Amino acid sequence: MGSIAMTKSRVLSVGCGGIGTMAAYTLEAGGLAEVTAVLRSNYSIVCKSGFTIDAIELGKGIKGWKPTQVLENVPNVAEEKIPPFDFIVVATKNVPDVSPTVLDIITPAITPGETTVVLLQNGLNIEKPIAERFPENVVLSGVTLMGATETAKGVVRQDDTDTSKIGPFPGLKVSASRAEAAGRRFVDIYNGCGKVDCTYDDNVLYTRWRKLVYNSSFNSVAAVLGMDVIRMRMTQHVIDELVKPIMLEIKTVAKAAGAELQDGVEDFFIMVDPPDGWFMPSMGQDAVKGNYVEMETIVGEPVREARRLGVPTPKLEAVYSLLKGQQMMTKEAKGAWKPHFAKGNPYAA
Amino acid sequence: MGSIAMTKSRVLSVGCGGIGTMAAYTLEAGGLAEVTAVLRSNYSIVCKSGFTIDAIELGKGIKGWKPTQVLENVPNVAEEKIPPFDFIVVATKNVPDVSPTVLDIITPAITPGETTVVLLQNGLNIEKPIAERFPENVVLSGVTLMGATETAKGVVRQDDTDTSKIGPFPGLKVSASRAEAAGRRFVDIYNGCGKVDCTYDDNVLYTRWRKLVYNSSFNSVAAVLGMDVIRMRMTQHVIDELVKPIMLEIKTVAKAAGAELQDGVEDFFIMVDPPDGWFMPSMGQDAVKGNYVEMETIVGEPVREARRLGVPTPKLEAVYSLLKGQQMMTKEAKGAWKPHFAKGNPYAA
Repeated sequence: MGSIAMTKSRVLSVGCGGIGTMAAYTLEAGGLAEVTAVLRSNYSIVCKSGFTIDAIELGKGIKGWKPTQVLENVPNVAEEKIPPFDFIVVATKNVPDVSPTVLDIITPAITPGETTVVLLQNGLNIEKPIAERFPENVVLSGVTLMGATETAKGVVRQDDTDTSKIGPFPGLKVSASRAEAAGRRFVDIYNGCGKVDCTYDDNVLYTRWRKLVYNSSFNSVAAVLGMDVIRMRMTQHVIDELVKPIMLEIKTVAKAAGAELQDGVEDFFIMVDPPDGWFMPSMGQDAVKGNYVEMETIVGEPVREARRLGVPTPKLEAVYSLLKGQQMMTKEAKGAWKPHFAKGNPYAA
Repeated sequence: MGSIAMTKSRVLSVGCGGIGTMAAYTLEAGGLAEVTAVLRSNYSIVCKSGFTIDAIELGKGIKGWKPTQVLENVPNVAEEKIPPFDFIVVATKNVPDVSPTVLDIITPAITPGETTVVLLQNGLNIEKPIAERFPENVVLSGVTLMGATETAKGVVRQDDTDTSKIGPFPGLKVSASRAEAAGRRFVDIYNGCGKVDCTYDDNVLYTRWRKLVYNSSFNSVAAVLGMDVIRMRMTQHVIDELVKPIMLEIKTVAKAAGAELQDGVEDFFIMVDPPDGWFMPSMGQDAVKGNYVEMETIVGEPVREARRLGVPTPKLEAVYSLLKGQQMMTKEAKGAWKPHFAKGNPYAA
């Protein structure tokens, strides 16, 4: 490490699809961070020719950009005796019902009591496994309204402007002041480029429930039906009988959980995608491709919160049960589930 | 018509897939009916080489069988001045949300006040459009527990023994005695071969609700998920959270509608398919093939009955809404729906 690097935060970036790559680029563009990026499917192409990025705030036609360091696997900081990372930014899918989990993946890179974990992922209670395993580490929530897509390996197109909210998850064991300091530091280095809109979020619970209004409804219905948002709006009934009722169920659970969302948020989200967009939510994209879907963090956790709080969520429950069935078939297709009558299965005979 | 034909009932058979072909063959084998069969996709092959049938009661390896008469289209009895049909046996899919409907298809072959219509189809309220258009005609319900599959064009394999129940739909405008006489006559000619088990059904409402316990649950979940019955049982949760709750919802609606089903009928139907069968319900088969599914008669009508009777059916409602979305996409794929923001659509802007 040279002298300049001493003043920069050391950031490990895990998950460099659309959002992850944009975050890594934004962090390095600000000059306050040096990014080590762990790449999977795009490792060789990025090593060879770097990323190609069409950004909105940071410029179109960026070619050949490489993070400070590129790795093919998450490093083991203890075994490899490398300096601790100040931040690990995680922008992978979060599918806790499939191994390896996010915790499994990032554990080797976390220095206990030191590294701050930033989860740029959707859903509820995603910090819990990490905070349980690393009670002395800050875990930050990152909710971004940016759309960004990896259109080919190493090629990223940013679709919307980058407005992000960063703040500590509630319920951490670390002191509130330490958590806030880590959160504000991350906001500063993310805003270093002066061109994106990243704000400190002192009400993560509210922010995450608000985003769930869109995700639990549109994403889950898109995944079950393989239908995009605009088609749902064109049928009308998919909105009136599924999307909107699920949004209202989420609002009711959120309120019981202490996050009172504003009136009309459901109508805002129903119309948030432009009518000429033919937009397929990420879970729908994954389902159509035969990939695992983030149904536990986006649907399962809200359902469990609802049960815990005694709030009925019949539509969300039905969609959740269907998504679990769909995920089983995806597991089967990927060789991770073999249909058989398990011992104790009452439907075996 | 020769002298023998004078004593035989004239039967028009519409829909000669697995069930329809088995019924046509059984009717002619009994010697009390002469069957005119309307064939669609298998018309040319049957004209050339007849049906190939592997039956359970009536014999394996039947080759080259042709009904008395084979037509490519439903005849117009008035215009073509042909003698009235005593019975029209309808074994097509029943998809009232897609044109042409069953009523559209069979209307030209019905002689008002004379022809009895026998609907060998699943679902609720399927007789209503026919009884409304032809109030002076008997409409019979045929519920069969036979499985039969057209494995290739003109090739039919019977999977289960043929136990059928035939009786007049309730609520017809014709006299009860005339309806019963028509029903008993059909049972007689169907049993003519002496080898199948067709009984007169004096409680059609009960019989149809009972079969809906299986169809509204397994069929609809199979269609939404593309998952077969045995896999559902292997996951357990698809049964516990979807299939069984829907069965119980149907039982509750049935009771409110006057059909009290026996205790444990849900457990019977959950286990009715043998565990080595990998059985895909017909709606699941249709969905996987991209065909229209019988969701209005099997799911929509029970939902509407439930609403009329004030019975909550949250799981069935959710699955119904999803099936409607799925059917829209099938319509789009077949060119029968073009996604556009219709006038008055509140989600257009």
